[in-house]
Amino acid sequence: MKRIEDFKSIIDRYDIVFFDAFGVLKTHSGLLPGIERTFEYLAAQGKEYYIVTNDASRSPAQLAESYHKKGLHFVDANRIISSGQLTKEYLELKVDGGYVAYLGTDESAHYIESAGLKTLPVRDVDHTNIDKVNALVFMDDEGFDWFHDINKTVNLLRKRTIPAIVANTDYAYPTSKHDVSIAIGGIAQMIETIVGKKFIRFGKPDSQMFMFAYDLIRDYRPISKKQIVMVGDTLQTDIIGGNKFGLDTVLVLSGNTLPQDAENRIQATGIVPTYICESAVLGPEALNL
Amino acid sequence: MKRIEDFKSIIDRYDIVFFDAFGVLKTHSGLLPGIERTFEYLAAQGKEYYIVTNDASRSPAQLAESYHKKGLHFVDANRIISSGQLTKEYLELKVDGGYVAYLGTDESAHYIESAGLKTLPVRDVDHTNIDKVNALVFMDDEGFDWFHDINKTVNLLRKRTIPAIVANTDYAYPTSKHDVSIAIGGIAQMIETIVGKKFIRFGKPDSQMFMFAYDLIRDYRPISKKQIVMVGDTLQTDIIGGNKFGLDTVLVLSGNTLPQDAENRIQATGIVPTYICESAVLGPEALNL
Amino acid sequence: MKRIEDFKSIIDRYDIVFFDAFGVLKTHSGLLPGIERTFEYLAAQGKEYYIVTNDASRSPAQLAESYHKKGLHFVDANRIISSGQLTKEYLELKVDGGYVAYLGTDESAHYIESAGLKTLPVRDVDHTNIDKVNALVFMDDEGFDWFHDINKTVNLLRKRTIPAIVANTDYAYPTSKHDVSIAIGGIAQMIETIVGKKFIRFGKPDSQMFMFAYDLIRDYRPISKKQIVMVGDTLQTDIIGGNKFGLDTVLVLSGNTLPQDAENRIQATGIVPTYICESAVLGPEALNL
Amino acid sequence: MKRIEDFKSIIDRYDIVFFDAFGVLKTHSGLLPGIERTFEYLAAQGKEYYIVTNDASRSPAQLAESYHKKGLHFVDANRIISSGQLTKEYLELKVDGGYVAYLGTDESAHYIESAGLKTLPVRDVDHTNIDKVNALVFMDDEGFDWFHDINKTVNLLRKRTIPAIVANTDYAYPTSKHDVSIAIGGIAQMIETIVGKKFIRFGKPDSQMFMFAYDLIRDYRPISKKQIVMVGDTLQTDIIGGNKFGLDTVLVLSGNTLPQDAENRIQATGIVPTYICESAVLGPEALNL
Repeated sequence: MKRIEDFKSIIDRYDIVFFDAFGVLKTHSGLLPGIERTFEYLAAQGKEYYIVTNDASRSPAQLAESYHKKGLHFVDANRIISSGQLTKEYLELKVDGGYVAYLGTDESAHYIESAGLKTLPVRDVDHTNIDKVNALVFMDDEGFDWFHDINKTVNLLRKRTIPAIVANTDYAYPTSKHDVSIAIGGIAQMIETIVGKKFIRFGKPDSQMFMFAYDLIRDYRPISKKQIVMVGDTLQTDIIGGNKFGLDTVLVLSGNTLPQDAENRIQATGIVPTYICESAVLGPEALNL
Repeated sequence: MKRIEDFKSIIDRYDIVFFDAFGVLKTHSGLLPGIERTFEYLAAQGKEYYIVTNDASRSPAQLAESYHKKGLHFVDANRIISSGQLTKEYLELKVDGGYVAYLGTDESAHYIESAGLKTLPVRDVDHTNIDKVNALVFMDDEGFDWFHDINKTVNLLRKRTIPAIVANTDYAYPTSKHDVSIAIGGIAQMIETIVGKKFIRFGKPDSQMFMFAYDLIRDYRPISKKQIVMVGDTLQTDIIGGNKFGLDTVLVLSGNTLPQDAENRIQATGIVPTYICESAVLGPEALNL
Repeated sequence: MKRIEDFKSIIDRYDIVFFDAFGVLKTHSGLLPGIERTFEYLAAQGKEYYIVTNDASRSPAQLAESYHKKGLHFVDANRIISSGQLTKEYLELKVDGGYVAYLGTDESAHYIESAGLKTLPVRDVDHTNIDKVNALVFMDDEGFDWFHDINKTVNLLRKRTIPAIVANTDYAYPTSKHDVSIAIGGIAQMIETIVGKKFIRFGKPDSQMFMFAYDLIRDYRPISKKQIVMVGDTLQTDIIGGNKFGLDTVLVLSGNTLPQDAENRIQATGIVPTYICESAVLGPEALNL
Repeated sequence: MKRIEDFKSIIDRYDIVFFDAFGVLKTHSGLLPGIERTFEYLAAQGKEYYIVTNDASRSPAQLAESYHKKGLHFVDANRIISSGQLTKEYLELKVDGGYVAYLGTDESAHYIESAGLKTLPVRDVDHTNIDKVNALVFMDDEGFDWFHDINKTVNLLRKRTIPAIVANTDYAYPTSKHDVSIAIGGIAQMIETIVGKKFIRFGKPDSQMFMFAYDLIRDYRPISKKQIVMVGDTLQTDIIGGNKFGLDTVLVLSGNTLPQDAENRIQATGIVPTYICESAVLGPEALNL
């Protein structure tokens, strides 16, 4: 583990950079000031990037648009890998017709539709269609009535022996400087405990997320894991996931892990990044090439 | 482990019978037909009973009244031990003034009020009173907006280092023949995982429930654990809890544990009741004394 | 939570003091220097004490003798409550004859013998006696061959549906300034996961430990929980256990919880002692009465 | 989920078959009688196979040799994917020199050596080399003194902030018709709980195992997940792992899952194989081509 002053030197060492989104590129109050320079430098150096995120609430196109609106025009939808895409791939390969019930917004149902399957919000499951429900997906924490639909989901899973897929493994996400909201991964965990069945989870730290991005790259160029670095703010997802997949990793201190806590948390968890760096933002001088 | 045909012979062997409520005395569709004979026989034999329940949604008086309305007039509020009473005792001993925030119905807040403390539904916590909140209690799964108030509870516990008490350890409860509802214990478990703090739980299988009943008895008569039997339908709460406290136990097959599953579940869990009996109901002939 | 400079003022506030042993009265290198003054002051003030410990490796008489050898002559065997005694009570009430198999030293088997039952070290379980084994007790981490006897225990529990009792819930204990050893509670936890059965655990933080001491006192004098304080060095056992039982609690910083970590750990765990005090040792001036 | 009478029809549907080893090809008493016909038929049909196993106790070459000795000459070392190989890849990518400490036999250390790193059995860790230990690997449950070396491992991980890799995620494995032995994955789990750090696990059900085999295939031929089927006897590893990776799956009833329990376990766990088949053995008539 080495402390690195300047994120530029990280970029210089690798050919491809994987970024976590929240806490690395943006926070609850918007983009990290100056983060566009990082992308400008990447482009200038002919380096590639991917954004690897557990956010399955919107499609990559919608996620990219939200970066554009915030002023980060470099972000391309094709460079966003969300756990929603793994969910889509699973559904394509493993579910043959029928309905896919889901908890989440209509937008999040995009990943189900794009797998060519019929969507059914949990609130609309009833005795006329329950036998045609062939999978359940936990997409997002919004878009449904918690009391009514969470209880309904428990009973759906007690009655039907179908795969339950969690498209976002996070338990909570920040909504302001001091507040968090429970993520769909936390709700799914509660339901899994109650029904006693085994759910399928997609998202960091699971290797399948990294593999998905890695495979995309290999489709158009040869690459070795040694040429890729994963940048994240969370030891338990970004760093251990990147490590296990065999990537070098950078812990940035702009999100979940506070500067004063970093060393303690690394020691306590035994999750060791290759580098620690204040943030992924480059100084203005970095672009004086 | 012995199979017993007739619950009468259980009563004959002990001086005091502890009953679980749900699945033993009543189900979602009302009282077990004939259960009043069990209480009539107990009275005729000069035996005592206690109902030991994880239901903290209402006061013992309200719980007793609900039995009376269903037609079981023998049940006395003084013989109902609910996990709510342990919560009340905890609050009396350990919380000095201020507010006690809670999730649950107004009725469930009875246990807080009766400890002489000021109640505050989580929905009413705000910046003017948050610093005066000295404990949080999970009372019941109804009486609040799940989305709004569960998230608010997470943030309350992140901001204030206060005890969080779970007045009902159950994860779910049946609402009809085929359906269940998530209990407040399941919600509390999710929040505990998310905030990473350690909650205080009251309810079976924890020994403190049995001790509370045992102490009540010792206040007016000498008693040994050998004279008491615990009757329940759930291995993981009633039976292991009773066993650990040192009581003989009876598994009845009128609730959670189906007749065809009983042996398998006992073997799989290693939780062995002293007796297995179809139900706690006595045949009409039992009263021909 | 209040910081208290002088442990004397704690004693002055209560009638009975419960002490944890390790980290409070002694460490791996012997008695805390000066701790005898605490006991002298207690005696002088007519206050009572109990030592409430998860150490089931030896009988209370042997534990008391070990204090005497170290120079603390005040400690009386009758004032030591070990989790071994709860195990003994359980066996007396719940096991009718046959053998009780155990992992531990011969000394630790004392608790089984004193329940009037026949002991059988796991290494001696064979096809001639396995059907007479009516309980298994995890007593201590020494006195057996780990590889051979831990595997044998797994298979015993797969073949026999009997209660498995853990007489010490701790996962590890310190053996020197920098080293720990795995305690029998850690081994039991591994076996419980592997066999998938539910074990019965005795020891702090479980209420039954505190109840046992409380009941002993009530046999000879009236007492309220308000008159007792629990003193310990570990938030997850001594403090949360004492709190839940309704006692005031003192966290001392002479053992598991380092002075620089105390506030952070309290905040992270949400386990709040009534008081924090450097140690349970009194200054020499305390005895100038 | 479909019941299939004849494993031949499974082979006919796919191009590549992934087999679990234990409970599918062999049991504690040797090869499944007739299993060589399955491999003969695969060869005759020009179909490929891979053996995907959590057994990291020996190298693929040694594993292949053990099949040859048992009489199954078709098995090629290049077609065996063990969790040891993922461990080797991790070490190559992520550990730069120094020692790799390990628990296991000398044979299991093969995977560390083949990553070009210096091996150090935990028993030989001492103050002269502890600072050069850069990773710890849990390889196998044999080859070391449990009491001495498991405790030593706990203290090594308390002193050094290094990655801990578990090369076999299983908790136990069968050693005879009625007995099991604790696997290194069970021991690792106990140590992880005690030291509170996060270990890196390789082995089914983790996707990285399947990905490793999939990547091997893609190096020499184009393939889609639809052309591969995973055959296993364990829902919690083979089937859920295969499902999650997007493969069709076959549950065979020759190992962990007994014929009479299959439906119940599928319903209880919610882990649904594509097919259920008595075993992977073909009848003699299958070869009359």
